[in-house]
Amino acid sequence: MVFKKVIPMLLMLINGLGIFAQQSLWGGPQIVSPEVHDNHTVTFRFQAPDADTVMITGDFLPTEKMNTQWGEFDVPGKAHLQKGDNGVWSFTSEPLESDLYSYSFIVDGLYTTDPNNVYKIRDVASVFDVFIVGGGKGDLYSVKDVPHGTVARRWYYSPGNNMQRRVTIYTPPGYENSRKKYPVLYLLHGMGGDEEAWIALGRTSQILDNLIAQGKVEPMIVVMPNGNVAQQAAPGESPKGLYKPTMQLPHTMDGKYEETFPDVIKFIENNYRVKAKKEYRAIAGLSMGGFHSLHISRYYPNTFDYIGLFSAAILPDQKVESVVYENIDETLKAQMDNGYELYWIGIGKTDFLYKNVNDYCAKLDSMGMNYTYVETEGGHTWTNWRVYLSTLAPLLFK
Amino acid sequence: MVFKKVIPMLLMLINGLGIFAQQSLWGGPQIVSPEVHDNHTVTFRFQAPDADTVMITGDFLPTEKMNTQWGEFDVPGKAHLQKGDNGVWSFTSEPLESDLYSYSFIVDGLYTTDPNNVYKIRDVASVFDVFIVGGGKGDLYSVKDVPHGTVARRWYYSPGNNMQRRVTIYTPPGYENSRKKYPVLYLLHGMGGDEEAWIALGRTSQILDNLIAQGKVEPMIVVMPNGNVAQQAAPGESPKGLYKPTMQLPHTMDGKYEETFPDVIKFIENNYRVKAKKEYRAIAGLSMGGFHSLHISRYYPNTFDYIGLFSAAILPDQKVESVVYENIDETLKAQMDNGYELYWIGIGKTDFLYKNVNDYCAKLDSMGMNYTYVETEGGHTWTNWRVYLSTLAPLLFK
Repeated sequence: MVFKKVIPMLLMLINGLGIFAQQSLWGGPQIVSPEVHDNHTVTFRFQAPDADTVMITGDFLPTEKMNTQWGEFDVPGKAHLQKGDNGVWSFTSEPLESDLYSYSFIVDGLYTTDPNNVYKIRDVASVFDVFIVGGGKGDLYSVKDVPHGTVARRWYYSPGNNMQRRVTIYTPPGYENSRKKYPVLYLLHGMGGDEEAWIALGRTSQILDNLIAQGKVEPMIVVMPNGNVAQQAAPGESPKGLYKPTMQLPHTMDGKYEETFPDVIKFIENNYRVKAKKEYRAIAGLSMGGFHSLHISRYYPNTFDYIGLFSAAILPDQKVESVVYENIDETLKAQMDNGYELYWIGIGKTDFLYKNVNDYCAKLDSMGMNYTYVETEGGHTWTNWRVYLSTLAPLLFK
Repeated sequence: MVFKKVIPMLLMLINGLGIFAQQSLWGGPQIVSPEVHDNHTVTFRFQAPDADTVMITGDFLPTEKMNTQWGEFDVPGKAHLQKGDNGVWSFTSEPLESDLYSYSFIVDGLYTTDPNNVYKIRDVASVFDVFIVGGGKGDLYSVKDVPHGTVARRWYYSPGNNMQRRVTIYTPPGYENSRKKYPVLYLLHGMGGDEEAWIALGRTSQILDNLIAQGKVEPMIVVMPNGNVAQQAAPGESPKGLYKPTMQLPHTMDGKYEETFPDVIKFIENNYRVKAKKEYRAIAGLSMGGFHSLHISRYYPNTFDYIGLFSAAILPDQKVESVVYENIDETLKAQMDNGYELYWIGIGKTDFLYKNVNDYCAKLDSMGMNYTYVETEGGHTWTNWRVYLSTLAPLLFK
């Protein structure tokens, strides 16, 4: 009876802790959640025999209004799951546009993750479940059977911050086996983000792999630094340990990051085979990273030929004393006079920064400064930022 | 009133989805969970005003017996949280030995993750919350203020599997800025694991960074391949998409991985500055990876000078037809005759493989084959495998 002896051994080999694993092996229904159907509807399932209500919330549902002391904001909507046999609740969505989506369950009022979905992404201080609906732009965010670049987490010394800092670097397929020099895109995250944001939620490596394979994007290195000068690295990746992340409001938009940004450029140009010239440097960022990209490209007005502002956090009322934010008009003028290939601005129609960004465009108009303006549906979301990266990347270094 | 206008804007900048983030900003208690105290007790908190019972289970609690159709197994124990003010339940552990631990909550019978802990690790098909208790070996698993190596996720072509395969590679601090050649440790995961396992739960990069900084470990490259030949990459990292992971039982211990292992060695030796000689090659693995290490080092009996078997899955009853498993005694004898520096075997006293590993040791004894045997408390757990790596690494390449 070799079988009888070997099977439990093989099962035990599966892992050392294995509570959930053992549960699913040794009883309980095999639940699939989420299940993406061919018609682009998605079924979510949650086993909760004794629950009174099970709801789901996520960015695939129509937004709702939320009242706060600061006014009304759009937040992701909610939907009720229906109780079925065996205590398994389920909900099937409308057909969804191809994309990557996030969600959470709410069981009797408690927010919880999906125990049947191992694909979770941290966004700022929260962890969400994610899924991809293919057949459109979601395919761009998926790992396909194409040559893959390398993603490295590396540390460099920033003299300006007197700090070892962590950076995520994508090198394109073939980088390691050529003598070629490559252009570089510096890709900056938003407030609360870090050097993991563009890889995790931004799907940078998938987007680049796929667009390079399609011949639409010039093979390039993508550098994703940490834009919070108070941090050495993402939460959990620094000597601060496994602390509860905070929103990183201090020292994020006070000029220090812009001032010390040449540290990361120098590190990259000294350590990678790159074309270290303005026409082969791009900088783009989302929200706070758009703010950073605006100011870095202006403060060093002869450094970047490609600038991308994604839902840029342009805050005209902000009063911060920093040499970086002095003489904004003069340095913008210098940037314009020095010339550049592309100044790309993307904003969603319902973004709370819509007016600020359009006011900034009016300012650029009044200066006679060239730019490309792209307006999309939606607001201040990763859905838009992935689209902006996918739209901008093919325009770089051409 | 600049303040009034800017604050909500800054809050909105934090992220695009932000349900949880908005909740914690706009009301609700600020819960810290887990909270590791100076005396090494840990308090866990969970907000559930309407729950009847909240429990916690994890590997920091004494094990319990679980009855299955295959017999009785040790599983992590459970403890009750007590309901306090504001509907926040809490539990404080006994003082814990310094280590990295995993846990989940059980709310009215439902397993759930900790919404206040962003540090989650996937183990096979489940996601757990983790925390570290410092002041001992947990310090070795923590990011410290020391020089850090680089961790790269890279793809290589395996002719033997006719497949692009993903591999995780740790290069030690200074690798990129020297002309030095380095020794290589091939570090193999267990059943259900993949090329992420040793980095995520094994804390390989932290252990290596810290032991190298202490001068206890020779700077080395650590290669963590994917040992499931049916997979190109970890779940979610291959063209199979975001599928529900299965246990990967087929084609994991059928000889194919061992047969095609030279593909990854060739890739590393052609692409990294390594000392491509037997005395600078080590191979070690946990559970199924221990099985693989045993058979790879024996089947290529003049390739590795250092072999590490961590809770190795030695299954004498297994009947698999593969050239790899023929003539086991003869190839072991050849390995012995060719010589090696270290054959290291680690096993926990309560590991279900204890007898198998000790029977294997008796076999080695009968052959007169030298080995180092280390017996620890505990069973088939990551707690032991991190200790085994920390114990073996200082012995390599000396």
